[in-house]
Formats: sequence, C-alpha cells, structure tokens
Amino acid sequence: MNFIFTEQFINICEIIGIIAFAISGAMVAIEKDLDVFGVVVLGVTTALGGGIIRDIILGMLPPNMFTNGTYAALAAVAALVVFIFSYYNYKYIEDHINLFNNALNVFDAIGLGVFVILGMNSAIFAGFTYNNFLLIFVGVITGIGGGMLRDIMVSDIPFVLRKRIYALACIVGGGVYLVLLKNNVNSDISVLIGIFSIIFIRLLSRKYKWSLPKVKK
Amino acid sequence: MNFIFTEQFINICEIIGIIAFAISGAMVAIEKDLDVFGVVVLGVTTALGGGIIRDIILGMLPPNMFTNGTYAALAAVAALVVFIFSYYNYKYIEDHINLFNNALNVFDAIGLGVFVILGMNSAIFAGFTYNNFLLIFVGVITGIGGGMLRDIMVSDIPFVLRKRIYALACIVGGGVYLVLLKNNVNSDISVLIGIFSIIFIRLLSRKYKWSLPKVKK
Amino acid sequence: MNFIFTEQFINICEIIGIIAFAISGAMVAIEKDLDVFGVVVLGVTTALGGGIIRDIILGMLPPNMFTNGTYAALAAVAALVVFIFSYYNYKYIEDHINLFNNALNVFDAIGLGVFVILGMNSAIFAGFTYNNFLLIFVGVITGIGGGMLRDIMVSDIPFVLRKRIYALACIVGGGVYLVLLKNNVNSDISVLIGIFSIIFIRLLSRKYKWSLPKVKK
Repeated sequence: MNFIFTEQFINICEIIGIIAFAISGAMVAIEKDLDVFGVVVLGVTTALGGGIIRDIILGMLPPNMFTNGTYAALAAVAALVVFIFSYYNYKYIEDHINLFNNALNVFDAIGLGVFVILGMNSAIFAGFTYNNFLLIFVGVITGIGGGMLRDIMVSDIPFVLRKRIYALACIVGGGVYLVLLKNNVNSDISVLIGIFSIIFIRLLSRKYKWSLPKVKK
Repeated sequence: MNFIFTEQFINICEIIGIIAFAISGAMVAIEKDLDVFGVVVLGVTTALGGGIIRDIILGMLPPNMFTNGTYAALAAVAALVVFIFSYYNYKYIEDHINLFNNALNVFDAIGLGVFVILGMNSAIFAGFTYNNFLLIFVGVITGIGGGMLRDIMVSDIPFVLRKRIYALACIVGGGVYLVLLKNNVNSDISVLIGIFSIIFIRLLSRKYKWSLPKVKK
Repeated sequence: MNFIFTEQFINICEIIGIIAFAISGAMVAIEKDLDVFGVVVLGVTTALGGGIIRDIILGMLPPNMFTNGTYAALAAVAALVVFIFSYYNYKYIEDHINLFNNALNVFDAIGLGVFVILGMNSAIFAGFTYNNFLLIFVGVITGIGGGMLRDIMVSDIPFVLRKRIYALACIVGGGVYLVLLKNNVNSDISVLIGIFSIIFIRLLSRKYKWSLPKVKK
C-alpha cells in the first residue's frame, strides 16, 4: 500500500465534508423550529460528531476537532449562513421546498462520502492497516456518527436506520477505496473514487427509490 | 482472588450474549418497521454497544469489538436470520406474539447477564480489582449500554429506565459474583452463578410483575 | 497564569454541582413517571454524565467518576431524597408547581455553572492551557453533557437546544473565567466569578424571557 496523500487535498475534502454536514444539521434544526443558537449547535454537532466518535474509538484523545478550533468555527459559520439565509428568505424556501430537500440530501451525501473515507484514513495513519474490517467499521461510524447525533438530538430515528441504502453505500464505497489502495492506485485518486462511489450510490438510491426488503405486517 | 478463567468458557458466554442481544435488537427493529439493513444495524449496535462503551470507559482503545470482525459478523448474521425468519413467517409470529415477546425478554435477560459479568471481568483483567464500585458500575454499563443505544436509536425511553428491576438485577448479580470471587470460589462457576443470578432476577421480576414504587400523581 | 486552587474549594463546588444535577435529573424522571430506580438512574446519569464525557474527551480513562464511588453515591442519595419527598408530598408539589419548576431551573443553572468551570479546570490540569478554544469547548460539553444525556434518555429534545441562552451563558462565563485567570486573578475567586456568571446569565435569561431569533414560518 502506498499512503502518500497530499495533505492539502485531504484538508480540502475535510473542509467540504464539514461544511456539507453543518448545512445539513442547520437545515434539520430550522425544520425543527430551533432558534439561531440551536441551529449553530446542531450544525457543529453534525459536522464534528463523526470525527469525535472516530477519535474516541481510535484512542486519539483529545479528538482532533478539539485541539483545533478552525473546524468548529467553520461549521458554526456555515450553520449561521444557512440560518441567516433562511431567516430572510423563508418564503422563497417554502416555494422551493423540493429544491431544498434535494439540496439537503446532496449535502448529506457529500458529508457522508468524505467522512467515511477520511475516517478510514485516520485509522490507516494510526497504524491499523492490517485489519480491513476495522477500517471499514471506523469509516462507516465516522460517516454516520454526526448525522446520528443530529437525529438523536432532535428525537428522530436516525436517518441511517430509515434510509436503507445509506449504510450499504458506505460499506461498498469503503470497500472500493481499500481495493484501490491495496492495488497501489494513486492515493488521492483512490480517495476521490471512494468518496464519489458513496455519494453516487447514495444519490442513485434516492433517485430510483431503491429500497431493501422489510417484514410485511 | 483467583482469576483463572478458562478462556474458551468466557468466549462461549460472550458469543451467547452477542447472539442474544443481536436477536433482541433485530426484533425491536422489525417491530419499528425498519428494513433489512436497519435490522442488521440495530442488531449489531445492541450486541456490540455495551462492550464498546465498556472499553471506552476503561481506556482500552480501539475497543475489542473493532479489532476483531468475528463478533460483528456474528451479530450481523444473527440479526439477518431473525429478519429472514420474520420475513417468511410473519403471520406465524403475529399468531404467537406472546411467545415472541417472551422470547425477546429471555434473550434480553441472557445478554444482560452475560455482559454485566464479562464487563466486570474486563475491568478485573485491566487491573481494577481493588475497587468494587468501579467493577459493578462498569459491569452494569456494559450490560445496559447496548440495549440503551438500541432504544435511544428508535426514539424510545430506554427499557432500563422503564423496567425497574433491570438495573437492580445487574447490581445484585454483580455483587454475588464479587463475593464468590473474593471467597476463592472457582472462577468459571462464579461467572455462571453471577450470570444466572441476573437472568433469574430479571425473569422472575417480569413473571411476578415485581415493581418498585412510583410517585403517584 | 496561576493555578493554585484550594483543592477543598474545588471539591465543594463539585459536590454542589453533582447534587444540583442529580436533583434536576430526579425531577425530570418523576415528571416522566419513572419509578424509584429510574429516578436514581436518571439522577446519577445527569450528575455524572458531563464529567464522564469530559474525561473521555481528554483521554483520562477510566473517568474520574468511576474510580471513586463517592460521587455516584452522593448523586444516588440526592435523587433518592427527591423521590421520597415527592412520594409523600406530591399533592404539595402539585399545588406549588411553579415553585418547583423554578427550583428545577435553579438547580440546573447551578450544575451548569459548576461543571463548565470545573470541566475547564480538568483540561487545564491535564496541560491544555495553551488552547482557549479547547478549554471552552470542553467546559461547555462538561456542563451540558449530563443534561443532554438526561433529556435524550427520556426522548426529549435536549434542553440546551431549546433554551437558547443556555449555551451562550456557558461560553460567556467560560470566557470571563479565562480572562480572569490570564490576568492572574486569584484562582478561587476566578472560579467563583466564572460559575456565578453562568448561573446569572442563565437565570436572567429565563426571568426576562430573553430569546434569540428563529426562522419564522
């Protein structure tokens, strides 16, 4: 395996993921009638939650997010921008609610894709390259942790349990990423393909309303 | 104290606990109308959650469950079997709903008993034998953690807070186990007696509808 | 900076915070119709939850609360006293419900103030003095963690997300505390001023129904 990631590239991905998840958290908070502070708190929790859970599991304490305020500040600003926009343009949002639901879904998909792959990278950097299961498990938890905390905090059953292709997308994308890495494909390209696999499966599954079997009652 | 546990015996107990909790998680998920992936995720969470919380508290990171995929695979398969059975036989389940509720209760009791005692063992192995309080607290949290995560994830008030003898059973069983160990009773036998005390109190309390006082309104 | 805290003083603050949060947890549990064990469990969770989350984040494992049973015993006794009082005097409480709601609010404010500042102290003692952001973030999470666990466990949206001045009070009080410390004000006095700033803002905001903007729908 060859792990020469360009640090900047990873940072850019992380920033995109944080902003995407902060926006999704802020949108859920507005839907739930929280005020500006609730919007910021839920945005930050959604954005940082997955990484915090990942670092706790890997024993990398205090979590990365706590030693560097930039990430939290970024998430807070992104959530605040969503709040301000919604505050002054709610009528517009109401008239284009499908557009915004689609946007929420896309942001959620981007955050998911980025955090799964970066979560796996954290575990790889921490030396757990020998254990594919651990890598994928940590990746999935990093990806879904923020969204789960978001949903639990507003008393919803987590999205990940209701939107069935969610976890499957993470596992498939994580698997693709590992296969590429083990075949010495360029690390940055592997990261990108891994992220896009997850986003792609997640969005396709929504568009075509893929669903998994349920027990019929 | 004498801590020569036969490793195989402990492993067998752990496997039984994981399967029991995975089944209980899967049954709750089906009741809540989740699909096959939700069923597997909730089964795995219920089965592994207590051990993960225990390892985080003891600082044994990454948690044991993450370094060995066998446990998660086992839980996933158990949950999947429950799903498949329910999928093809839901009419049968509906006609025997009391039977299945009783079964859920028994599986939950078994998982609880096993995880409380094994949680205490983990703390003992980690060197915390001097502190009875820590041992029992860690045991109880290991026992109830998976079920609590399960209930929180489906937006229910955790079982442990509603079924009152629940926590009491853990504390009594954990206490019995400690007394036996400190009197140099054979470790395997102590484990078994500890586990069965918890299962026994838990099941008796349900059968006889034991309940603790409440503030009357 | 000058960090010579009188250990006894800090201990007294911690005891007050634990009792206040245990009472608030017990009162919520009674309101939610839990029985005596549920009341104790929720009281202990509310009282110890913030400190446990703090210690996990700082990597100080097992958390302080687990190595010393005194804190948990204290919280359990406080919750039990609330239960017994309510059990025999519920009519009285019903007739003075506003009084009790106010009391709950005050206890919650005291617990919040104490835990935010002590959480920051834990981080300072652990050597993280260089990072103001980390200190305040850890302080806020220590302060709100117990109450959040309490609310999540009874399927409510956490207070902290609904009572908008809540988090703001923590951040302002934590900031005041840091400024005092960095200007070499006596540590005990700084602790007291920090704690009272938080309690003060929190109570004022309730009295005058301060509220932050919301998206109007």
